[in-house]
Amino acid sequence: MEREHLSNLLQNRQFKMVRNILKTMNEVDIATLLDDFDDKEMAFAFRLIPKDKAAEVFANMNDNMQSYLVEVFSEKELEDILDDLYIDDTVDMLEDLPANLVTRVLDTVSQSKRELLNLLLQYPDDSTGSIMTTEYISLRQFMTVAESMAHIKRTGIHKESIYTCYVTEKRKLIGIVSAKDLLTSDDEMHIADLMKTNIISVNTHTDQEEVADLFRKYNLIALPVLDRDEHLVGIVTFDDAIDVMVEEATEDISKMAAVSPSEKPYFETSVFTHARNRFVWLLVLMISATITGAIIGHYEAAFAALPLLVSFIPMLMNTGGSGGAQTSALIIRGLALKEITFGDMPRVVFKEFRVSILVGIILALANGIRVYIIYQNFSLAFVIAASLVGIMIGSKLTGCVLPLCAKKIGMDPAIMAAPLITTIVDTFSILIYFNIAIYVFQL
Amino acid sequence: MEREHLSNLLQNRQFKMVRNILKTMNEVDIATLLDDFDDKEMAFAFRLIPKDKAAEVFANMNDNMQSYLVEVFSEKELEDILDDLYIDDTVDMLEDLPANLVTRVLDTVSQSKRELLNLLLQYPDDSTGSIMTTEYISLRQFMTVAESMAHIKRTGIHKESIYTCYVTEKRKLIGIVSAKDLLTSDDEMHIADLMKTNIISVNTHTDQEEVADLFRKYNLIALPVLDRDEHLVGIVTFDDAIDVMVEEATEDISKMAAVSPSEKPYFETSVFTHARNRFVWLLVLMISATITGAIIGHYEAAFAALPLLVSFIPMLMNTGGSGGAQTSALIIRGLALKEITFGDMPRVVFKEFRVSILVGIILALANGIRVYIIYQNFSLAFVIAASLVGIMIGSKLTGCVLPLCAKKIGMDPAIMAAPLITTIVDTFSILIYFNIAIYVFQL
Repeated sequence: MEREHLSNLLQNRQFKMVRNILKTMNEVDIATLLDDFDDKEMAFAFRLIPKDKAAEVFANMNDNMQSYLVEVFSEKELEDILDDLYIDDTVDMLEDLPANLVTRVLDTVSQSKRELLNLLLQYPDDSTGSIMTTEYISLRQFMTVAESMAHIKRTGIHKESIYTCYVTEKRKLIGIVSAKDLLTSDDEMHIADLMKTNIISVNTHTDQEEVADLFRKYNLIALPVLDRDEHLVGIVTFDDAIDVMVEEATEDISKMAAVSPSEKPYFETSVFTHARNRFVWLLVLMISATITGAIIGHYEAAFAALPLLVSFIPMLMNTGGSGGAQTSALIIRGLALKEITFGDMPRVVFKEFRVSILVGIILALANGIRVYIIYQNFSLAFVIAASLVGIMIGSKLTGCVLPLCAKKIGMDPAIMAAPLITTIVDTFSILIYFNIAIYVFQL
Repeated sequence: MEREHLSNLLQNRQFKMVRNILKTMNEVDIATLLDDFDDKEMAFAFRLIPKDKAAEVFANMNDNMQSYLVEVFSEKELEDILDDLYIDDTVDMLEDLPANLVTRVLDTVSQSKRELLNLLLQYPDDSTGSIMTTEYISLRQFMTVAESMAHIKRTGIHKESIYTCYVTEKRKLIGIVSAKDLLTSDDEMHIADLMKTNIISVNTHTDQEEVADLFRKYNLIALPVLDRDEHLVGIVTFDDAIDVMVEEATEDISKMAAVSPSEKPYFETSVFTHARNRFVWLLVLMISATITGAIIGHYEAAFAALPLLVSFIPMLMNTGGSGGAQTSALIIRGLALKEITFGDMPRVVFKEFRVSILVGIILALANGIRVYIIYQNFSLAFVIAASLVGIMIGSKLTGCVLPLCAKKIGMDPAIMAAPLITTIVDTFSILIYFNIAIYVFQL
């Protein structure tokens, strides 16, 4: 509706009205709205955005929109946008642009900025360096609060975050001062007396997941990034940390469902990529399921003698698989949030053992009674009930031990989730079930 | 190690050294460290924390530690902590304290604060009201930048967030000004000319999940909360929004693994609660798995004639279940991040259909060839391959349609994840498989 309204105004050349609408809209909303336009219309509308908002809208656009604009921009337009765009947003854009457009961008910026961008582009994809910005407020310890605020007034407008200021000496970070401290302290106070020297910082090569953990743990607005020589080279701001948190949760959920994670949203990922992200794991799972099949084949004599046994296979396999999946999901999430570590293994195993006994007994009772009522066969009811308790203990222990071990040897625990656990648990579910059945029925 | 060091110092009555160590430590780290102490030692160490840090440490402690301290605090100590604690942290604490201690706290605070706390405690658990704070900077539009900054200097120290200031008139919110705007604008400028009037706000009863979405979408530091009469009553700060995001992701992961979500971390949840959170879903899943079992029973004649058929059941069921789980996980996450909506159903179905054909063919080839090589039986190889394609199409379509429909009718889509999808997919996997087998082998 809004899209059509704006589109109509554009076609009727009501540019002033379009400009007025765009003036009051939020930058993120403008980017979302323009995504619904075709490229030409989008570029046209983009040029009507007030100059002080254009860079922010641009930063919120997706790769395709940014590519198109960089391609059709005049020299002057590109220069203006690049001037206003924060460094980390520029790097984000460059990471996804086709090579010829990257060249166009790098040719447009000043030499010092080009060198900086080239440096930032070299950081590995998951590292802090790839999400940091180099625009921050830097103070000296001999400055007063009033001098610091004057400094911020002069330089702050171009800094992404001014709410944490960094006190440096010979490029080394020696303290931090929050804007709140500055705003609530006396003008004459010296930064040296105000700054906190107990600083949480990371390295350019720190994994971005760890950065997100620090933001979550310490409720940070920004986090300083040091290079190998302990020099301050940039900061990460909380909005980028939130993006990382969301991305990591999505990655974990994908992996837990046996999908290789995609960097792009669902619709922006091609059918071919979707298929590739899925079939590899399905093939791996098939191999282990085949083992279960072979084991079942081994008990052919048993179910030939008592075909009814076969019809309980899905229920037992599913219950075992789901029971294991429950535990592994809780452990994987606990590991991700640092609530559980490998050292907790004995506590976890003991806890899961007790839980599995409780759950196993409840399920055994419910099913034993059901089977007895339907088939009037006490032995069968006993086989099902006893199998359920055994399967539940086995599946819950597998569900906690495997993710913990994966973590210990440096693998991603999320891989040890439902699909893999299910397949492993299936095998011994079948073994437990048929062995109890053979024993009870003397097959 | 750090714990032992501090513990030794305490036992040797080296209080000054303990105080010096605590002085340089981060508040979150102190709270974590004290968690390893026994209660008495913890209370003792807590009293050695510098006064300006104590409230922040207290806010970061878990329920048990807070309860114990509130119980053993002197009147004066409790008063001091409550004075320094932000309102939202006080509410957080009160929500988990035993009734007698809640009374103790409410008896200690001033009447106006008691009324405020009672009001905040009434908001539903998942609502914005339950996570907001009432301490914010409020400005008037006729104030100048210099006057505003003087106002912040007088009152800001007790506000949780001063980085977004709220311009009110007759208690209504008419604009917002960021601290960055204040710090980088001329002293004489009026707030009316500086404030943004296009405001993103929520209501006290807005679901906290929606609040977290707004922070993520718009990169906010704080978000104003209005009551029914559009009066400004509080703000939510980004740290609380991050907590909600993490909590919601944990909840989704739990539900996707058929575990009723727990509000507390893994170890703080009792064995009994763990069992209760898990067996209900397992019972539900059992019922549907029983249907699959009954269907298998229906084909007794088929596998009595060709027992080999049974050994492929686990592989086919698992592949179908995992294929469906993959799709449902992607769709559920896409829905949670608002990347996918119910209206996208046709696009999603078409995409999943193409993906499932691709994946199905790859799996069919791999397995068909394997079966042919092992059993030298072309018909069997064909049955398995054809079943796989059919199962993959069915499971991927189920995996996308069910979560979308759940969302549409107001259910939580996360419930439509792996365990439920697996059980549903199992049923038609068996149907497809046996029908193809019966047709091909003329059983």
